[in-house]
Amino acid sequence: MEKVLNFTEYDVNGDAAYTLRRAIAAAKEAGATRLTVPKGVYDIRPDYCSERYLCISNHGFNGPKRIAALIEDMSDFEIDFGGSTLVCHGVITPIAVLRSRNIRIRNLTLRNSSTMMLEARVTGHGSDDTVELQPVNGREAFVLKQGRLYAQYLEQTLVPVSTNVEFTGEGGEIAAGTADNTFDVGAEAVTYEDLPDGRMLAHGVRRKPPIGNILVISAARRLGAGMFCEESTGITAENITVNACYGMGFIAQMCGDIHLDRFSTLREEGRMHTSDADATHFVNCSGRITVENCTFEGQLDDALNIHGMYTRIVGKGEKELFVRQMHEEATGIRIYRPGDRVQALEPAPLIPYATLTVRTVEYLNNEIIRLTFEESVEEIAVGDDIENITQEADLLFRNNIVRNNRARGMLIANRGRTVIEDCYFHTSGTAVKFESDGDYWFESGGTGDVTIRRCTFDRCKHGGWGRGVIECQPRRAVLPDRYFHHCIRVEDNEFRMYQECAALMDNVETFVFTGNRILSAPGKRTEVIVRNNRNCTLQPDVVRAD
Amino acid sequence: MEKVLNFTEYDVNGDAAYTLRRAIAAAKEAGATRLTVPKGVYDIRPDYCSERYLCISNHGFNGPKRIAALIEDMSDFEIDFGGSTLVCHGVITPIAVLRSRNIRIRNLTLRNSSTMMLEARVTGHGSDDTVELQPVNGREAFVLKQGRLYAQYLEQTLVPVSTNVEFTGEGGEIAAGTADNTFDVGAEAVTYEDLPDGRMLAHGVRRKPPIGNILVISAARRLGAGMFCEESTGITAENITVNACYGMGFIAQMCGDIHLDRFSTLREEGRMHTSDADATHFVNCSGRITVENCTFEGQLDDALNIHGMYTRIVGKGEKELFVRQMHEEATGIRIYRPGDRVQALEPAPLIPYATLTVRTVEYLNNEIIRLTFEESVEEIAVGDDIENITQEADLLFRNNIVRNNRARGMLIANRGRTVIEDCYFHTSGTAVKFESDGDYWFESGGTGDVTIRRCTFDRCKHGGWGRGVIECQPRRAVLPDRYFHHCIRVEDNEFRMYQECAALMDNVETFVFTGNRILSAPGKRTEVIVRNNRNCTLQPDVVRAD
Repeated sequence: MEKVLNFTEYDVNGDAAYTLRRAIAAAKEAGATRLTVPKGVYDIRPDYCSERYLCISNHGFNGPKRIAALIEDMSDFEIDFGGSTLVCHGVITPIAVLRSRNIRIRNLTLRNSSTMMLEARVTGHGSDDTVELQPVNGREAFVLKQGRLYAQYLEQTLVPVSTNVEFTGEGGEIAAGTADNTFDVGAEAVTYEDLPDGRMLAHGVRRKPPIGNILVISAARRLGAGMFCEESTGITAENITVNACYGMGFIAQMCGDIHLDRFSTLREEGRMHTSDADATHFVNCSGRITVENCTFEGQLDDALNIHGMYTRIVGKGEKELFVRQMHEEATGIRIYRPGDRVQALEPAPLIPYATLTVRTVEYLNNEIIRLTFEESVEEIAVGDDIENITQEADLLFRNNIVRNNRARGMLIANRGRTVIEDCYFHTSGTAVKFESDGDYWFESGGTGDVTIRRCTFDRCKHGGWGRGVIECQPRRAVLPDRYFHHCIRVEDNEFRMYQECAALMDNVETFVFTGNRILSAPGKRTEVIVRNNRNCTLQPDVVRAD
Repeated sequence: MEKVLNFTEYDVNGDAAYTLRRAIAAAKEAGATRLTVPKGVYDIRPDYCSERYLCISNHGFNGPKRIAALIEDMSDFEIDFGGSTLVCHGVITPIAVLRSRNIRIRNLTLRNSSTMMLEARVTGHGSDDTVELQPVNGREAFVLKQGRLYAQYLEQTLVPVSTNVEFTGEGGEIAAGTADNTFDVGAEAVTYEDLPDGRMLAHGVRRKPPIGNILVISAARRLGAGMFCEESTGITAENITVNACYGMGFIAQMCGDIHLDRFSTLREEGRMHTSDADATHFVNCSGRITVENCTFEGQLDDALNIHGMYTRIVGKGEKELFVRQMHEEATGIRIYRPGDRVQALEPAPLIPYATLTVRTVEYLNNEIIRLTFEESVEEIAVGDDIENITQEADLLFRNNIVRNNRARGMLIANRGRTVIEDCYFHTSGTAVKFESDGDYWFESGGTGDVTIRRCTFDRCKHGGWGRGVIECQPRRAVLPDRYFHHCIRVEDNEFRMYQECAALMDNVETFVFTGNRILSAPGKRTEVIVRNNRNCTLQPDVVRAD
């Protein structure tokens, strides 16, 4: 039986966050199936937001987070925002779904009114090492001290500018060959000056970006996300647009069965960037993940990243291992449960050599976890990595557009089945990267079975960030007849090449590259690099290289 | 029946923090009454520390905190460290007591090996605006960027130097008249340079501190504390020495019956400063607080601060108020419980005009709290403050030495009975301040009954920070025949005056200043200023002023 509540009835003080809070609490109390919000533009201020202590993977800054719509320990519940816009003022994560089941969020635009990004148009070149900039938005989030630009938060704590991304004024593409360093000097070497007319002067640049281009100057810290989901199953986000947010647009960790349909990062009028980081991100998720009918543009990192987490063995005892969450942005993510199956691997090849069953889990703190096992750990070596293989997801990414974003299109480290089909990629870096490493990010997931078909790769990798349109991160070591990536098929796609390398495959057991339409870049051949491979089938019109 | 466990038996990997953790867990499991630690110097690293999400009052930085000895939900338990030293490497709170009863910690020295402080000796004066400094300790915690000194933490987040305290090389007093600004220019205006021989050059100074004096250059953030107690009753800390720690030496919030006996902040050989902030601090505590036989020196804030918290009314409904924790460092401290009695006050005079009983408490987040009441709130005005008067403590501070610290000796905002007796104060600022305000810090507590007797005030207030040896923070407004401070008696003390003002009393109903031995400063009279007072008794040899 459907039971529907209306947002408006819970408004007591005109504060949209408080109204959301009351309405969701009432829905929980009454076992309502749906909350409807009348179409409108709602200002969300931190004051009446909910708050939870969150550790958001790949974000860092574990701690209390303000949340506009908090869905917690609920099931079979939908919020239909009816086409509304939530404009969040301050460090706010607009939506969080925690320990819930069958939750649907629909028909919503999200926006943080200011993050830690400064967009500025290039208006002139000095005869010396200077460039004139006209701030377009975000200037208010920065302070200038001794010529350095800082974003400020938490009691005068300063975050220096670290990257600087350039978009073309016409078209809004990442400017060719610029990557994270458009001035061709480190961010530390550039100083800024406010001019009396409101423009700024950047000093110390080596490359002068073309007049009219837009720079996104970032001191961003991932203090929140657009929509954060944890330990929940059956999540649908439908017709949601993220204009701007701290951190990622959507991130789910330890979740199952996720459906993003028309969940897009889209530019607000007059802005080049959307989410501060990845558009979507999935960590230690399981079941079926479907991402379809989305447009991802202007996000300042990949459109999608899926992975698990390697933890490093730092100590052992009798049937007991101490493992560490190695990357700061992985701390506090509680990925182990009693009964989980884990594999041990050497960090260089990342090929599992033992499988164990977890008996007990003790989180000593956000970094070190004590695991006991059913089996002996005698053959397991301190210094190796452990991966939890209990979670395994099938990823379907179809009918999506990925364009004009910083970095890559997709980072795939997925042990389940992956299908990428009928998508358009115009990414500044590699379009699809098989990422994973056991040394720095510790993002885990030996590739299972991947099909990439009927996609268009349109001048990908014109900005930087990688070598091939599709590529594998090489392992530091390979083992004979053992492969990190099992099967990758690239079939019936169109490659409109910007450079030579269509694919760089390394450590793939079976690689198939057939039926693709290749439009080589002017004056260049198109090559496919294949290394450390068992079975390889390549169509004839590409050059196989090593 | 006493049941004693020995620390050594729980050592499995040579890590002292993990051994502590295991031993305390075993004690909890076995209902042991005591844990003994053999005398030794134990290095504590963050790796195997416990961790809790803590909001520590007057510290800020709510979030996960590593803890070496975590006592949680325990009762009737003692740890006797047997004269050991815990040397904490990294951001660690050595001891935390949460939700426990009858806990005793004994015979211990605590030290964080590095905080966010740089101690440097003045070795020379340039002919221009420079001063040469020889770093003595803490240099490794700082980075130099564009001439500015920053402490660094959390992914390249920078904390600029904010204060700069000066100690005399001989005697280790705060240098006369220097307060927080020894260079006589703002911290922002001073730049630093590393010299090849390991010294540093400070540029842009207006006053040159005498050669041989020691500067403590601070970019300190209160990321932890020495010993933190929350929601616990019956806490004894006995024979504990804090050499150095992040934040305060001891802080208790929402605790009752606390006994500090020989709990001291003492200088390690070759260092001028001890705790980064107050030596001891009590927030919303109740019962009996006894601090005796302690020496507090070198701490970079007051020796003791006791107060409650005003929260500001930001909204109201039917029998309902929304109140806000106003100071950032008060957020997350959960001071209200159903059944609590609270008073409403206007922020300027801080005289209560209504008393209410809390029915329900809902923490919307770390800042805003929804309180419902048994009574009508019709006469309560938005914009006024609310104080919880349920907690009320009697403070006995006796036989203590307070010397050579930054700022004041004691900040008293205590509604219960306060006795300060047989103490020696050689503080750089006011020795005893009756603090409280409803506008900035929001530290609450109209003075009840105070006796200060048989103490020696030795050249207090030579550094700055205040006007009188004993003084009241004035209210912004007074009400006829209503007083913020009820009764303050200053009897049989010795005042060795550095300046004129022995006491500045404002808004005290009954003030008695008798039997004190006054040794006036050379060429100066000694005066007592009394304003807005009902009953005043002054000994004849001081000058009464307004």
